[in-house]
Amino acid sequence: MNQYPLSVKKLIGNISKLPGIGEKTAERLAMHILCAPRKEIEALADSLIAMKDTVRSCSLCHSLSDTEICPVCSDPARDETVVCVVEQPADMVAVEKSGAFPGKYHVLQGVLSPMCGVGPDDIRISDLIDRVGKGKIREIILATATSVEGEATASYIAGRLRSCGVKITRIASGVPMGGDLKYVDQVTLKRAMESRHDV
Amino acid sequence: MNQYPLSVKKLIGNISKLPGIGEKTAERLAMHILCAPRKEIEALADSLIAMKDTVRSCSLCHSLSDTEICPVCSDPARDETVVCVVEQPADMVAVEKSGAFPGKYHVLQGVLSPMCGVGPDDIRISDLIDRVGKGKIREIILATATSVEGEATASYIAGRLRSCGVKITRIASGVPMGGDLKYVDQVTLKRAMESRHDV
Repeated sequence: MNQYPLSVKKLIGNISKLPGIGEKTAERLAMHILCAPRKEIEALADSLIAMKDTVRSCSLCHSLSDTEICPVCSDPARDETVVCVVEQPADMVAVEKSGAFPGKYHVLQGVLSPMCGVGPDDIRISDLIDRVGKGKIREIILATATSVEGEATASYIAGRLRSCGVKITRIASGVPMGGDLKYVDQVTLKRAMESRHDV
Repeated sequence: MNQYPLSVKKLIGNISKLPGIGEKTAERLAMHILCAPRKEIEALADSLIAMKDTVRSCSLCHSLSDTEICPVCSDPARDETVVCVVEQPADMVAVEKSGAFPGKYHVLQGVLSPMCGVGPDDIRISDLIDRVGKGKIREIILATATSVEGEATASYIAGRLRSCGVKITRIASGVPMGGDLKYVDQVTLKRAMESRHDV
């Protein structure tokens, strides 16, 4: 059985290792890459390596950064008394895109998950406690996911910080904006009902 | 607004240029690449460039090849009197995977499309006529797509080859195997009805 040339087969194999990309999609991408200008593909290959080489964790908030301290942590215009705690760098980007938060961040780089063997020492919880211990932080906003693990992580961190005398808040959960009630799941609706507020 | 570091942004930009990959998917892939072993990403980057460098068109059938003549064309065990005409290299791979064809191929590298300005001289039709002219070919199987352009291309090639005295056939179209009649479109059903055969 003769199929693609070896070099094409290799590329398809490497592309289909990426998450959410099956062999069919990898094949389609390889065919596109074959026809695309060489310059464009060189730029893609270079940026793959360049990112692996330059990106590190910010030593303060543990988000992604090209430098020792990330631009958010080193920005004097941002309120350093409020820290938003998120699971991953992508969550921080999502909050940044909302434009709703002028403070600083703390990226846990994971979430407590006994099932996967992730305990409090495997994510950046003690770093957060150290940051709070320095005394400048007034409020910690727990913005981990509303999944079982995210909720458990938020409640664990709240317990650890209770004695520090810092205000601890949790982002609201309820019906998403533009959401149709009949398509919203029962747990979300229950939460929205419980967290109702005066108008 | 501070978001991803520059090198991550660049990679996301380059990935989202690929067809069918939006910015959200590119972001997800970049986050995976960030955590993946460096070796794996190097292999991906290398295979991108390697494929661009080594793959060319087979000078006989115009399929993809690492060599001047592709393995299918140079295989003496394959029947050179029957040639299957397909639009793209990926179509040839699909036919090969079916294991239903022991002959040789001719890849048109496109399809007639007046709307996109693709005429008979823009795809490999004259090369096919040259191959038929050499006298060894007994049958041409037209396996272009069953789209409007594919049908038109098949009928155009049939017209051009009629005077060559070669047998010209078209792959069957009808209800796909495992297909439920109620989910099959009307045009396909009409075709299946017209092309019914004795049992």
